[in-house]
Amino acid sequence: MALRRVSVIGSGNWGSTIAKIVGYNVSELSGFHNEVLMWVFEEEIDGQKLTSIINEKHENVRYLRGVKLPCNVVATPDVAHAAKDADVLIIVLPHQFLRRTCAQLKPVVKKGAYAVSLMKGLAMSGENGIRLLTDMIREELSIPCAVMMGANLASEVSQEYFCEATIGASDGKIGTELKSLFQTKYFRISIIRDEVGAELCGALKNIVAVGSGIIEGLGFKDNTKAAVIRLGFMEMRAFIFQFFGDRDPQEGTFLESCGVADLITTCYGGRNKRMGYALATSNQTLEELERGLDGQSAQGPLTAAEVHAMLKQRNLLDKYPLFTAVHKICARELPPSEFLSCLCNHPEHM
Amino acid sequence: MALRRVSVIGSGNWGSTIAKIVGYNVSELSGFHNEVLMWVFEEEIDGQKLTSIINEKHENVRYLRGVKLPCNVVATPDVAHAAKDADVLIIVLPHQFLRRTCAQLKPVVKKGAYAVSLMKGLAMSGENGIRLLTDMIREELSIPCAVMMGANLASEVSQEYFCEATIGASDGKIGTELKSLFQTKYFRISIIRDEVGAELCGALKNIVAVGSGIIEGLGFKDNTKAAVIRLGFMEMRAFIFQFFGDRDPQEGTFLESCGVADLITTCYGGRNKRMGYALATSNQTLEELERGLDGQSAQGPLTAAEVHAMLKQRNLLDKYPLFTAVHKICARELPPSEFLSCLCNHPEHM
Repeated sequence: MALRRVSVIGSGNWGSTIAKIVGYNVSELSGFHNEVLMWVFEEEIDGQKLTSIINEKHENVRYLRGVKLPCNVVATPDVAHAAKDADVLIIVLPHQFLRRTCAQLKPVVKKGAYAVSLMKGLAMSGENGIRLLTDMIREELSIPCAVMMGANLASEVSQEYFCEATIGASDGKIGTELKSLFQTKYFRISIIRDEVGAELCGALKNIVAVGSGIIEGLGFKDNTKAAVIRLGFMEMRAFIFQFFGDRDPQEGTFLESCGVADLITTCYGGRNKRMGYALATSNQTLEELERGLDGQSAQGPLTAAEVHAMLKQRNLLDKYPLFTAVHKICARELPPSEFLSCLCNHPEHM
Repeated sequence: MALRRVSVIGSGNWGSTIAKIVGYNVSELSGFHNEVLMWVFEEEIDGQKLTSIINEKHENVRYLRGVKLPCNVVATPDVAHAAKDADVLIIVLPHQFLRRTCAQLKPVVKKGAYAVSLMKGLAMSGENGIRLLTDMIREELSIPCAVMMGANLASEVSQEYFCEATIGASDGKIGTELKSLFQTKYFRISIIRDEVGAELCGALKNIVAVGSGIIEGLGFKDNTKAAVIRLGFMEMRAFIFQFFGDRDPQEGTFLESCGVADLITTCYGGRNKRMGYALATSNQTLEELERGLDGQSAQGPLTAAEVHAMLKQRNLLDKYPLFTAVHKICARELPPSEFLSCLCNHPEHM
């Protein structure tokens, strides 16, 4: 029987971290080809190609400095080459590049292959508001697409700190194979069937994290912050059941690493929380603040705007007072000091 | 129709805070007698009785300094007097005094009265391991007993910070009445039917908080901490369904303020987390550490010991690796550095 091949499409810090794990695991597992191709968007570092550096030094000096990759992880600048023989495509791109990359993958994807997305975010689709990144993969490539989500920052996983993740795979066989590829002694994995719920938790939590930062910036304490986090969690849940109810989301998903754990870490640390804090403690616009925060944009305000547009069009703003207030504060349409008064008549307390 | 009477049995910082809220609310509601009696364990402050000070200054200078109580909250040193005409008994005592107080209440409790417990903890009962504090109330007083739990520290609620609470009341009428007594503009309440789940979450979360402190003390970062909090949450849930499944606990309870929100705040702040941190960063025994931490004992190690005894007797320790490891670390039977290796084969990841 032919050995199965795994490729990693993307090589940022999370992609490189996962390539390290998968490279190690395939060399221990039977049934897999030993080589793991990793697609790298080519760039030059001190006159040398990044792919050459990775393949010589076994280190992604640009995005995951100081972490050794196994020798069987092979960088390639050619996405079609990386993908064409793969049975398992691990997709971990900055999500603005997804559409373009799908177009490049489409002609080469192997029959019977499947994808797993490690991306946290949403795509916009004009009419229906938001679109799942995995739906873009499923529809463009005509293959199944699972997800792996959870409270796992690349920096902590790459240093082999104990972390968890959730694999969402509607096909049980895919879930089991992915777990064998991803789990290590320090990186512990639960499998659920609910792909859609897991993916949406990963995207929506960023709105709540902005709210958590606003509360901190306003000087409120732990219990107020816990109340805001929980109300945000309830809006995530309501949103998923309201708009994706036909995709069979599960209550249990919210208690997985992709749910409550990812929410907690994002609300206590990370870029979106810092953005909320900054919004509450300055008069600058979102754009000005983003320029200040090392130039990287936070996902939360963007997701809040997308969700707000969707809710407004359907006259549902009053059912999601936290999502709505976060968006308005990001857009500077509402003073941060008014945040809590927007939550006083929350549907959860009716 | 006779006006209904509400009494508060207990006057620590949480009891006094609740008396403030209830005193204000009954004066605005129809159907309630304006006076709220509050039982105060009498003590002398600078030669003056605490009850007299409270009734003259309208401030509990001993346990809630700086917060004005409404004039209709009347302190009494006589618990039978406080209770005998009450239709609603709000019980908020240090729980080691509960048994004794129940014996004093038993002969005077009014027919048709009910109780609501605001206490977080467990009682030991020799044979079955743990016993609910509310079961002691129900059995000793032969009246229904609801609970109010949640992420709400007295200090924050008394300063009117926005907080949430969960009322667990199997009787819908009781739940509705209690909400009218407790809810304010800044103190927002959800009602659930699951009394038992709500109460147990409040007690068991303290074990998890010790674990969260251990992780912090060991120098691990956010995602490891989130993993530990979540695994603890899963053990709380498994424990409640395993041992109290016949009391009809509900999945939804874990997403209420009494569940996830109380867990989060307790794991990020508070005495139990500090105790865990101290256990991981010193060689002192639990007793030595408790003497150091302002002499107040933390509930978590005690609850962990009770739960451990119960699990051991039933050969279930391997289903609760986090509860077990926390107990062993508290008892100094396991080095804190071994904590995570106990979680590597967690049932959640099987």
